[in-house]
Amino acid sequence: MKNFEYKNPVKIIFGKGTIPKVAEEIPQNSKVLMIFGGGSIKKNGVYDQVKDALKDFEWFEFGGIEANPHYETCMQAIELVRAKNIDFLLAVGGGSVLDATKFIAAGALYEGKDPWDFFTKRFLVEPKAAVPLGAVLTLPATGSEMNWTTVISRVSTQEKLAFGHPLVSPKFSVLDPECVFSLPDRQVANGVVDAFAHVLEQYLTYPVNAPLQDRFAEGILLTLIEEGPKVLANRTDYDSAANFMWSATMALNGLIALGVPTDWATHMIGHELTAFHGIDHARTLAIVFPGLMHVKRKNKKDKILQYGERIWGISDGTDDERIDKTIAKTVEFFESLGVPCTLPEYDVPAETIGKIKERFKQRKSKLGEKQDIDYNEVEAILENRL
Amino acid sequence: MKNFEYKNPVKIIFGKGTIPKVAEEIPQNSKVLMIFGGGSIKKNGVYDQVKDALKDFEWFEFGGIEANPHYETCMQAIELVRAKNIDFLLAVGGGSVLDATKFIAAGALYEGKDPWDFFTKRFLVEPKAAVPLGAVLTLPATGSEMNWTTVISRVSTQEKLAFGHPLVSPKFSVLDPECVFSLPDRQVANGVVDAFAHVLEQYLTYPVNAPLQDRFAEGILLTLIEEGPKVLANRTDYDSAANFMWSATMALNGLIALGVPTDWATHMIGHELTAFHGIDHARTLAIVFPGLMHVKRKNKKDKILQYGERIWGISDGTDDERIDKTIAKTVEFFESLGVPCTLPEYDVPAETIGKIKERFKQRKSKLGEKQDIDYNEVEAILENRL
Repeated sequence: MKNFEYKNPVKIIFGKGTIPKVAEEIPQNSKVLMIFGGGSIKKNGVYDQVKDALKDFEWFEFGGIEANPHYETCMQAIELVRAKNIDFLLAVGGGSVLDATKFIAAGALYEGKDPWDFFTKRFLVEPKAAVPLGAVLTLPATGSEMNWTTVISRVSTQEKLAFGHPLVSPKFSVLDPECVFSLPDRQVANGVVDAFAHVLEQYLTYPVNAPLQDRFAEGILLTLIEEGPKVLANRTDYDSAANFMWSATMALNGLIALGVPTDWATHMIGHELTAFHGIDHARTLAIVFPGLMHVKRKNKKDKILQYGERIWGISDGTDDERIDKTIAKTVEFFESLGVPCTLPEYDVPAETIGKIKERFKQRKSKLGEKQDIDYNEVEAILENRL
Repeated sequence: MKNFEYKNPVKIIFGKGTIPKVAEEIPQNSKVLMIFGGGSIKKNGVYDQVKDALKDFEWFEFGGIEANPHYETCMQAIELVRAKNIDFLLAVGGGSVLDATKFIAAGALYEGKDPWDFFTKRFLVEPKAAVPLGAVLTLPATGSEMNWTTVISRVSTQEKLAFGHPLVSPKFSVLDPECVFSLPDRQVANGVVDAFAHVLEQYLTYPVNAPLQDRFAEGILLTLIEEGPKVLANRTDYDSAANFMWSATMALNGLIALGVPTDWATHMIGHELTAFHGIDHARTLAIVFPGLMHVKRKNKKDKILQYGERIWGISDGTDDERIDKTIAKTVEFFESLGVPCTLPEYDVPAETIGKIKERFKQRKSKLGEKQDIDYNEVEAILENRL
């Protein structure tokens, strides 16, 4: 096990009927900005519940955060925060709304010219202050409710980039599994795949003798495999919704990454597919992961074999046969949720591969847990998905 | 799954060579009191490492915290904290030193007459302030390094009682697995049993459809079963020490209890065995747990069967046969670590059972996840261990 440091002070309030508790968590006399997405919260009753909870606060609202939230939209919210002297942000939505709110929180108090610096000059430019934020999570998927990272897309440059800082960690997140009841199939399926991929990014690397982290990761994978289909089949099954929601949070709150190597190449490559073609984030992961496992089968052999055996019960055959079966089982699972795993199924032309390759070549990025995935391997991974 | 709230802001600093980091975590210009136990830290080099780390602080020391720390000793430390205007406490030791430090932290700022009130008037009298504290953990076992509960023994009344409050949560805990290298067999064995019992208290209840919590609990149990004997066999095996240490922390930092019922009857009964006979805390749990499983085999049937199957591979036979085998396997594991599981092996006379029964009768306590263990069942549990 490698050395690590961990502190996760997000307060989680979990369970049915918990949305009114935001009133107890937001500091009294705060001037609040409620931030949300495309308006589904106005149809499913969540907006009204939050409005009720905020009745003793002065509050404003900012709707219209997109999936893969746009820098340009967030900059409008930043202007509003500054103009109204907002001192608490309440994200009401899924990972996109959470991520946007984190960027808005740090961006509003940034003293430099353009808070996009956080992304392009990551680790060089960091926030020194942020407006405090809390969340009401309506869509289990990204884990953003219990971590301090954010991913934002800039439309004008077709870029999708990430940064993280403890200052943008939510003070609290309210997780009411009943929010799952009104989600469309596509969002449930995306959420399951997203959480599943988050675990794989932190697990499918190389062994460092960290059996507890492995078992926690495997526990999340097995639970998603069991509970995901149940949620799809019966949207008002509270227990399955709750198990799905808690699994998605635990998949990316930092815990299973402690003391082990992590990969994140699939996310980096997937972000490019979203940037060029607007494909749902989770779906890009479903495309890339099978290709990554195929191309990195030597470096990741031990962990792919462990994953195949403990998650899919695959223990017969040569190593290569077992790896092929494990990839096939993973694809089969994603497809069973209605999520295709090849580029043509999303109408991505072969030329896109060249464009993405070129980007990684320009950036001189080396991806993966050993920084050994260069632009040629990115190309090979994507060509595997044609 | 039941509703829950969770916030655990303890900063964990984990790994070899991390003890010097305490200097970065304690606020500058703090007046520090280092609190420790019987002096083993002076033999294994930890005392010197901490002393080095504190070289830029004004600091004092208070040694002599006992196993099952005494109220009477803590009250002396509280006097010192008050006399010297100490504003940071650094616990250096195992769970007993941690627990003592938590009590000292709250006790020193208590405005009432006697801070023992926290224990005897639990939930009625709570601390309003506490001296901030941090820890260097030298002995994996109790999980006290990442939670906010404390258990203190009062010699004069032969009582051993608990209280908890977020104010006594450590600000940070440094976990250097190399501290395990110098531990005697008895402390390693006790630590493994203690952590194992902590998991069972939060797991062996009744099913509430919380599969992720179950898998996390099972992951800790399996890791302790694998790694505990390795640590006993080879004290300088760093990876095993690290896996043992992290498992013990995860066993009682609140995570696996979220949304599920918890029992704690074994602890309550075990505390009495310590109070009357001074038996090591972990060993009292090894005595009581098999008796508890035997007596509560009906109420706990589903979870005992699941535990037997997933942890010990027991799936053949009638339910009662499987439960008996599961109890036998648990006893066998504790005994393999050198920890006996019956009362006569600790020279506890049968009369003690009557005394303990009488205490629970006087207190009118109902124990267990369904508050259905009365003094008669306490007697039955202990009689099973004769």
